[in-house]
Amino acid sequence: MAAYPKALQALIAELARLPGLGPKSAERLALYLVRGPVQRMRALARALEQAAGGVRVCSLCRGLTDRDPCPICDDPRRDPRLLCVVEGPAELNAMEAAGGYRGRYYVLGGALSPAQGVGPQQLELEGLVRRVRSSGVREVILATNPTSEGEATAHLLAEVLAPLGVTVTRLGYGLPVGADLKYVDGLTLARALESRRRLD
Amino acid sequence: MAAYPKALQALIAELARLPGLGPKSAERLALYLVRGPVQRMRALARALEQAAGGVRVCSLCRGLTDRDPCPICDDPRRDPRLLCVVEGPAELNAMEAAGGYRGRYYVLGGALSPAQGVGPQQLELEGLVRRVRSSGVREVILATNPTSEGEATAHLLAEVLAPLGVTVTRLGYGLPVGADLKYVDGLTLARALESRRRLD
Repeated sequence: MAAYPKALQALIAELARLPGLGPKSAERLALYLVRGPVQRMRALARALEQAAGGVRVCSLCRGLTDRDPCPICDDPRRDPRLLCVVEGPAELNAMEAAGGYRGRYYVLGGALSPAQGVGPQQLELEGLVRRVRSSGVREVILATNPTSEGEATAHLLAEVLAPLGVTVTRLGYGLPVGADLKYVDGLTLARALESRRRLD
Repeated sequence: MAAYPKALQALIAELARLPGLGPKSAERLALYLVRGPVQRMRALARALEQAAGGVRVCSLCRGLTDRDPCPICDDPRRDPRLLCVVEGPAELNAMEAAGGYRGRYYVLGGALSPAQGVGPQQLELEGLVRRVRSSGVREVILATNPTSEGEATAHLLAEVLAPLGVTVTRLGYGLPVGADLKYVDGLTLARALESRRRLD
């Protein structure tokens, strides 16, 4: 990188920190940006600044939001008796994009994964219990991914929720095993939502 | 994307414009950034701003630089009689990283590629002729890539340079055919530089 101007070297170094970008793809991307119109780089810089300043976590559902509580938690037309538990914000977004769900959410922040060091302590379980206790929830829909991690997480959640006297259901038929919820089409997701079943 | 805060939607849209990033990878990258420390996003934004403000094209060699002329063109220890023509800034950087070359450069801005609509008009040929005429160049080393586009470009350059009375050589043995100059190891590049040959 020695022959590049310092600002370009710095940009390559920052891009190379991003997941999925090695030093060579970071170099290619930086050169693409630097050789293109300056406005393109400025627009990306501005978007980053604004996201850095304006995106936070909703204190109720732990989803991403620009105000607290988030528009979904704050929407009086949403059914407060239904709570859908998802692994992350991308899954919440996929559920919303599928349409058909009119309850609220809780973002768990991951799934059990002993291989990656994620145990029950790493998930936001206390917040979930608090959420269920405090807001008239009658049914908790477990929408963790249909993977072994997601299934294990659903079983853990069912145990945690058992003493609270709420109905616990699991997204059901329609999800192909091993898939990632964020990439499933809306129709399949909607079917899975309809055919949710009680977890024993 | 409807369930994401506006600033996050905007960031996803900006990232999705980058080459090699589809909407899903842009979403993944934006979520990674937004869920990480705010400083990481700010650092990337700052690097983009500084590159947007500080990186320009050298008026002599057309390489990327933060001052004009660039440090290589401006370096009195560089041999003014040797001029190495490369396709782009990444190739210039690879030559410098290989070491062993003590002349100057000219960045052509691409290679002939009828398929991509790059003809002689799209290359900075006039600048090259001006550069060779005005600065005591004795030998022009054609370091375009060892691909069919790069070879065609080298032949075009040899024709363009013929009337100027300079020796024209081509990077030679050591470059595996079909490779991309930016990914060749330094040793191979150094060998190719040593074994450059006159183009007839």
